[in-house]
This record gives sequence, structure tokens and C-alpha cells, in this order.
Amino acid sequence: MVLVTTHDGHKDNIMTISWTIVMDFTPVFAITTGEWNHSFAALCKSRECVIAIPTVDMLDKVVGIGTCSGTDTDKFAKFKLTALQGKVVKSPLIKECLANIECKVIDIIEKHNIVVMQAVAACMDTARKEKRMVHAVGDGTFIVDGSKIDRRKMMASKLSAGV
Amino acid sequence: MVLVTTHDGHKDNIMTISWTIVMDFTPVFAITTGEWNHSFAALCKSRECVIAIPTVDMLDKVVGIGTCSGTDTDKFAKFKLTALQGKVVKSPLIKECLANIECKVIDIIEKHNIVVMQAVAACMDTARKEKRMVHAVGDGTFIVDGSKIDRRKMMASKLSAGV
Repeated sequence: MVLVTTHDGHKDNIMTISWTIVMDFTPVFAITTGEWNHSFAALCKSRECVIAIPTVDMLDKVVGIGTCSGTDTDKFAKFKLTALQGKVVKSPLIKECLANIECKVIDIIEKHNIVVMQAVAACMDTARKEKRMVHAVGDGTFIVDGSKIDRRKMMASKLSAGV
Repeated sequence: MVLVTTHDGHKDNIMTISWTIVMDFTPVFAITTGEWNHSFAALCKSRECVIAIPTVDMLDKVVGIGTCSGTDTDKFAKFKLTALQGKVVKSPLIKECLANIECKVIDIIEKHNIVVMQAVAACMDTARKEKRMVHAVGDGTFIVDGSKIDRRKMMASKLSAGV
């Protein structure tokens, strides 16, 4: 679950996106969204956004953001979130999030509602204690990040092998 | 982390895919892969595959599958996995996995190495005790599914609101 902020030239908006994909081993992301989402017009027009990473303590805000519309709601005000200015893009960072990734849209594949974007700047709140993300199952339940397993040694061999 | 099996007309193969995306609220998936992956040719030619969902107890097999190549390795034999026949596609199911989703490729977006596919059959091993999936962070570490949070009531309101 990530939050995606946009700025349409007049105002900021936020949407909740359940499904993101990190592509390849490069700073390229894709999300799926479409015209049913009020932010989509701003995303298409400005061709930039911020992917903000919320943590489990923010779950009710994240679900709330996904269940109201920017057409009639100032989501920053309603959910008591703080908009911060980014380094590169005009879409706002969300101060309360664990990380904020400023992105430029590099392609919109309308047929599949896929927006492909590239990170141009990123910052992380390293002082933040709660770092667990949440992931939508799709049925209204969410899975919280659990323990971490290290397989860096095993993965290192990947450099010398094809897949 | 999912395993993707293919059948090229002669033999079965498996690849490890870190990044999948469930698109929209439909049984459509996308993965990113490309020519560097031996399975890619079979995927393009047969236009079908099986997405097999492994759990945390299978992590070393999953990483192992991702660090050797089908060009010189029978991965089912090497990793002691059992190939089962699917209902619709020729790519094999993996018996040891939690779930197996038979998929037809509906689009290949070469520019971004995105393969879009649709589920045509699925089965789940409901008797399996270990159900926790693992997710690649990208640096050789993996996050195991933790606790589950229910927000079904809150999400129900989504049906009556735009996003």
C-alpha cells in the first residue's frame, strides 16, 4: 500500500494505491490506476507524482484516503497530513510517511491502466521507529510486514549466473 | 516472490520473479521479465505460464531457482519439486506451493519488459499449515508476511465513494 500525491496546478491530492511494482533493478515503478481515480487527470497532465510509503500505524488513514474522493475532499486536511515541498516535482511529500519518492511519469499504458514512472529523488525518515509496511490482500484485509530474512550471500552468486 | 513455470514444447522450466502486480480488481497479473531470462522465450512462444506461490519455508529453493539457469539445469529435479499437470495450460503446477494460478499471456509490453496475463484457473492447498509468503526487498533480504489486519467494514464504504 502506498500513497500517491499529485498537484494539478491548483491543489494537492492523495490517492491510495494497493498495487505497485518495482521494475527490473532500476528505480522504475509502475502502478495501476485509471480514470475512475480523481488523481489520474493530474497525473496525466503534470506527468509527475510522489509515491509516499506509509506504515502500519497509518493504516486507517490509508484506507480512509482510498474511500473518499479528491473531488470534494481536501485529504491533507481531513487526514491531518503535512504536505512538504519536494526537491524536483510539484506534487507534495507527506511528512508523516516513512519514505517519499519523487517520480516523473515516463509512460502511460492506457490499455492496461499502467503508469510507468521513474524516481528522480527520494528521502527516508530514518529516525522513525515504526517501519513496517502493509499490503492489501484485496478483500479488505491487510498483511503487515513480519520478520526479515537475509540471503545476501546466496544472492551474490546471481551476479555470475543467468536466470 | 513467486515462481513462474513454463513449458517450451520440450521441457518444463521455473523462474523466480520478485515483482508481480495484481491489476485492478480483476484476475489480471503483470510481471516484469525479459530476454535475460531463459523462460522468456517459452513465455512468448506458448503465451501461457503458471504463477506458483511459495511460502517462507521454501525461501532457499526460491532463491536457488533464481540463481541458476534453465539453459543447463532441470530445476524441478535440482530443487526436488513436483510438476503436476494443470487444467488449462501446458506449463506445470508446482505441487509443493501454496497456490498455483494458470495464466494466459494477454500482452507483452517489450519497451518496459512487462508481461500482462490473465488467470484462467487456480487452486490452493488449503491443508497447508505454512501460508506466509515472502517479499524481496531487492538487496538480498526478504520480508515475511506478518500479522493480518481486517478493515473489511471500512472498505465496504468504498463501494459508495469515488477515489
